[in-house]
Amino acid sequence: MSPIPGLQRVGLLGGGVIGGGWAARFLLNGVDVQLYDPDPEAPRKVDEVMANARRAIGKLVMPALPPEGTLTFVDSPEAAATDVQFVQESAPERLELKQMLLRRASTAAGPDVVFGSSTSGLLPTLMQDGMTHPERLVVGHPFNPVYLLPLVEICGGEHTSQAARTRAGEVYEALGMHPLQLRKEIDGFVADRLLEALWREALWLVNDGVATAAEIDDAIRFGAGLRWSFMGTFLVYRIAGGEAGMRHFMAQFGPALKWPWTKLMDVPELTDELLDTIVEQSDDQAAGRSIRELEALRDDCLVAVMQGLRTADFGAGQVLDRYERQLFGRVPTPTIAPDHQGPLRLHEVRVPTDWVDYNGHMNDSRYFQLSSETVDRFLRVIGVDDAYLAGGHSWFTVESHMNFLAQAKAGDALYATVQVVSTDAKRMRVFTSMRRSDDDTEVATAEHMLLHVDTVADKACPADPAMQAVLADLAARHSHLPVPPQAGRSVGQSR
Amino acid sequence: MSPIPGLQRVGLLGGGVIGGGWAARFLLNGVDVQLYDPDPEAPRKVDEVMANARRAIGKLVMPALPPEGTLTFVDSPEAAATDVQFVQESAPERLELKQMLLRRASTAAGPDVVFGSSTSGLLPTLMQDGMTHPERLVVGHPFNPVYLLPLVEICGGEHTSQAARTRAGEVYEALGMHPLQLRKEIDGFVADRLLEALWREALWLVNDGVATAAEIDDAIRFGAGLRWSFMGTFLVYRIAGGEAGMRHFMAQFGPALKWPWTKLMDVPELTDELLDTIVEQSDDQAAGRSIRELEALRDDCLVAVMQGLRTADFGAGQVLDRYERQLFGRVPTPTIAPDHQGPLRLHEVRVPTDWVDYNGHMNDSRYFQLSSETVDRFLRVIGVDDAYLAGGHSWFTVESHMNFLAQAKAGDALYATVQVVSTDAKRMRVFTSMRRSDDDTEVATAEHMLLHVDTVADKACPADPAMQAVLADLAARHSHLPVPPQAGRSVGQSR
Repeated sequence: MSPIPGLQRVGLLGGGVIGGGWAARFLLNGVDVQLYDPDPEAPRKVDEVMANARRAIGKLVMPALPPEGTLTFVDSPEAAATDVQFVQESAPERLELKQMLLRRASTAAGPDVVFGSSTSGLLPTLMQDGMTHPERLVVGHPFNPVYLLPLVEICGGEHTSQAARTRAGEVYEALGMHPLQLRKEIDGFVADRLLEALWREALWLVNDGVATAAEIDDAIRFGAGLRWSFMGTFLVYRIAGGEAGMRHFMAQFGPALKWPWTKLMDVPELTDELLDTIVEQSDDQAAGRSIRELEALRDDCLVAVMQGLRTADFGAGQVLDRYERQLFGRVPTPTIAPDHQGPLRLHEVRVPTDWVDYNGHMNDSRYFQLSSETVDRFLRVIGVDDAYLAGGHSWFTVESHMNFLAQAKAGDALYATVQVVSTDAKRMRVFTSMRRSDDDTEVATAEHMLLHVDTVADKACPADPAMQAVLADLAARHSHLPVPPQAGRSVGQSR
Repeated sequence: MSPIPGLQRVGLLGGGVIGGGWAARFLLNGVDVQLYDPDPEAPRKVDEVMANARRAIGKLVMPALPPEGTLTFVDSPEAAATDVQFVQESAPERLELKQMLLRRASTAAGPDVVFGSSTSGLLPTLMQDGMTHPERLVVGHPFNPVYLLPLVEICGGEHTSQAARTRAGEVYEALGMHPLQLRKEIDGFVADRLLEALWREALWLVNDGVATAAEIDDAIRFGAGLRWSFMGTFLVYRIAGGEAGMRHFMAQFGPALKWPWTKLMDVPELTDELLDTIVEQSDDQAAGRSIRELEALRDDCLVAVMQGLRTADFGAGQVLDRYERQLFGRVPTPTIAPDHQGPLRLHEVRVPTDWVDYNGHMNDSRYFQLSSETVDRFLRVIGVDDAYLAGGHSWFTVESHMNFLAQAKAGDALYATVQVVSTDAKRMRVFTSMRRSDDDTEVATAEHMLLHVDTVADKACPADPAMQAVLADLAARHSHLPVPPQAGRSVGQSR
């Protein structure tokens, strides 16, 4: 039983990369699917897309997904469209084939069942020709991978009803997508026209030997492509225009339209009317936000995207990773002066915006993360490096205790220190103190017990003797420090 | 003293949006800057860019930045280029102006000081005309915001030496950028040609009333733009071609080049030679990775980018947030059956890849996060909702204790339960148990003391009486459960 009201079962026509992606969207949202594809390989292909989709969506969303819908392969377009509440067609881009499938399926579907077509560019008016109840056909054009990318362009033909457009939008939105309702019927719709223009110029660049495929891709993904993941060209250019706004930008870069900056020279005339239209639409889009606000929004998104890509270890994320290593490399490795007696100051952060929770304060789990990162740095100080890890040894945290003493907000500068409480051949007990950099206010403390492990045998073992000696030396130096009042506490113990 | 070897001080010509961005890149990396800009507003403008850059870079990188370099405004191009190791020119796009600045500055700079020009499209051969030592000029074309976007196109002119190209690449890389060395000198270089093609098509779409500026932007940022933040068009299309590869893709979509999918119809002929070139370059780019591997990489990047944008609460991040709320909404709010006696199962996750640390296991701080999220869900169960928070009340964690009992790996399904240990009007002590879903192995436990607070007065106060009653009822039901062995422990206490 699907958890989406009014969407229990859908019919799919075509089960290739796109049809399989639709199957995944519906099934993972708990909707049953009846799929028609004459290709005997279709079940295997859909299976492969489903495996990708399960993996990706499982990573993407935090809430548990509903139980998966049931996938049934059927042997005719009519069978696919029987007893369903929606039909999506994703056959190859041949008009006659799509017309045949839609015509046959529409005879079997209830009269108010809306049909979406995944075509990349064929006109809906041509496709609805011959359908029973043609007014219920829309183009619902998705992007690969369908199970992840939110965009779906909705385009009606001459006979399409407003009700069909609305219903299609509701269905796609229930699947977690962003439906874009188009105003006019046009070959290639909107998105593919933009992609096609860029693609044609890219082909010229390869054709003329100016750049290779990889270089052209780099010219996108390390620059404008990062911005395009959250802002389109119009908003980006509005920001580039600065306080003077969109009209200023157009005046400044309008002449470039006459320059040979692309081989695609058949450009529209920048009439006053076109300029007015662009300026007005750009104002609407900015919705009263100042350039400063838009700049901050753009920068926050770029930071988030690049940090995300660092997690994926690809593209601009690799550039960021390399840069951070450079920055780390320029700071001398923390060494401990032979006469140093106090706690070791090993970590500094500025609280990022996503460390803050609905109470407006740094989230408790982020203090744990800060302490954990500080202990990681301490491990580096005592000699845990790539070679030590590769040799099959590491330290694992087995028990921790934290006290939360004050609040930190986004942007606060914090630092953290480590004090060795006790140690033996296999164990160390360390205490971290997290403080505000400006006034030394202690915001949180943590105590961690770490066990030295043989990571191959997966059991405790003594640390390297040299490491033991470093630790024992530090413990001896810290034995003169008072034991912090939070060390050795159990939760709720009276003070 | 700059921490970058051989780069203590640089000269900048021009301090607008781009020049200011360069100033920020250099200064935040600890390099001193001498800036020439005749605009009396330049100091204010650079100041504004610096404020944006400090904020953004502080969020972007974890390591502490070096002490900022010193910014000095000077009154001539010659003064800017005196006693520096690098010069970057970012004047308005007028050839004569750039030529004058470069000519004058080059007389004052040491003979091996390399010059980069930020021009968006002017040819370096024209710009180096008249310079002292013209062989040291390259175009170093950055993208806005310069302090965040990694791409910089390096393009030499007829007289440019290889040494100058190499040195410019080193300088930009030391600033955390990705230098792209171009093979040929061409108007608009590579990136701007691609941008210009898309932009010209976008202007046609507005001109013809097909879509508004906001709709065109949406057609990018919810679809192809998300992919472009990490993969360019060639790699994306290779994946779309599936196992059959790039030649298959070109055969399938080649005909579309003849269709009116853009107004830019002057396309290159798909000769066998061009096809071979594209296929070969695409193979090089894939570097032996299979389509399945590329698909997984693409999906991981999309997940990372969308999750990043959710943090920034914009674009596809908003779509994801809405989808998650839909998913949460479709799961009935957890209610507790009147006769339920056991711990409350409130949370399930599949361990994301970025929860795993260098030991290959779920990081200790992520267990804390999981427990913290579970307690958040428990708070919702007892009546903490948006209205309660808006009314100036919440629960803050003041003390926590954790035991780490077993390992979890990326992809493992985990669930978490809550047991109420004790409660009074202002406090609750809860115990969470985190287990593997497949075999119920307990991987970690946590104990938290929470305090009920008046968030306006910022002090403890009794919870709402109805909430107290719900808590007392749960505590009474849980009073029959055994106290878990980990509850009440201090770190390192013997068992």
